[in-house]
Amino acid sequence: MNNKKVSTAVIKRLPRYYRYLGELVSRGIPRISSKELSERMNITASQIRQDLNNFGCFGQQGYGYNVESLYNEIKKILGLGRNYNLILVGVGNLGHALVKYENFISSGFNFIALFDSDSQLIGKEVNGLKIMGADSLLSFIEKNQVDIAVLTVTKSKAQEVAEKILGCGVKAIWNFTNKDLQCLEKQGASIENVHLSDSLMTLSYNLNRQ
Amino acid sequence: MNNKKVSTAVIKRLPRYYRYLGELVSRGIPRISSKELSERMNITASQIRQDLNNFGCFGQQGYGYNVESLYNEIKKILGLGRNYNLILVGVGNLGHALVKYENFISSGFNFIALFDSDSQLIGKEVNGLKIMGADSLLSFIEKNQVDIAVLTVTKSKAQEVAEKILGCGVKAIWNFTNKDLQCLEKQGASIENVHLSDSLMTLSYNLNRQ
Repeated sequence: MNNKKVSTAVIKRLPRYYRYLGELVSRGIPRISSKELSERMNITASQIRQDLNNFGCFGQQGYGYNVESLYNEIKKILGLGRNYNLILVGVGNLGHALVKYENFISSGFNFIALFDSDSQLIGKEVNGLKIMGADSLLSFIEKNQVDIAVLTVTKSKAQEVAEKILGCGVKAIWNFTNKDLQCLEKQGASIENVHLSDSLMTLSYNLNRQ
Repeated sequence: MNNKKVSTAVIKRLPRYYRYLGELVSRGIPRISSKELSERMNITASQIRQDLNNFGCFGQQGYGYNVESLYNEIKKILGLGRNYNLILVGVGNLGHALVKYENFISSGFNFIALFDSDSQLIGKEVNGLKIMGADSLLSFIEKNQVDIAVLTVTKSKAQEVAEKILGCGVKAIWNFTNKDLQCLEKQGASIENVHLSDSLMTLSYNLNRQ
């Protein structure tokens, strides 16, 4: 892999390549040209070549890409093919849905613990996991390997909870709180935001411009 | 508003401006310079000025932005301040969570009907709405004003269901199926994708590059 920094836009496209190649693999298609892939994915062939060149030389002039080997390469680049331990902080409706989402589990992302501050929820089970009290969150992190914390607490608690979690050594937060977590990426943490309301507003913008 | 086409990147930042300005409004802050806003939002001041210039002249040299009036302008640009009728197609765990998400309702996005093909689910209630059978989906759309269809069906059904819905006159789809809907935007529909698995894989990529 080259050492130059890969742009966020390229990184965001990688899972999409992975999805499309996964479909080709499951259909038993052995190879594909960047032109064909381009038509399926609605990205220009030159963009595909540029994107993939960030990570090595995969295609071959006149042959195209070997589907399965490119799929496996991107899988490796994305850090898949190993297991990740996830914890959920804030067990509301969205939290429930995330814990039960089978796609994550099949990709190696496993929830190992759930936390909430609501005493009505503590002790209840979701997908075989007992909800623990928020007061045992930090000691759990210290005693267990936690790779990713999934944050579904209320917006007002987001920054404080995130800082505590990262302070205990967790390196990645998947943030659903609709609050931008300030200054945490500068501390070396990886933060991935899913702003559902922002996404819905983008849709209403586009709908009104039709 | 200028007639030139606004880039997707700018459109995607609009809800974020709206969120930050909303916080300032609720704190009673009457005005803000692009420099101050820049520091809060971690975007350069010149980027903020460029973004907003797409939609009109809002700031004033030496004064900055009037917070409440800019907030209201962006609200209007985003198409907020009116109500949208939403239907949910596919009432799984994620669908449940979306229907119960209070932020959407307070922004004017109201679910008016839920559909599923699972006979075990039909007739059950979520948030006061009875789940209807998938076979009544199209006739419902024909008889009611449906602004946005929220798609949470399985990946394999996504394209077919989306085509049917758009064929009945719905203009916007909020797509959670982890499947890119092909060719639909070319038909004039607005599609907004939320690929949760892609987002999680972007996080695992970044985590492995730390």
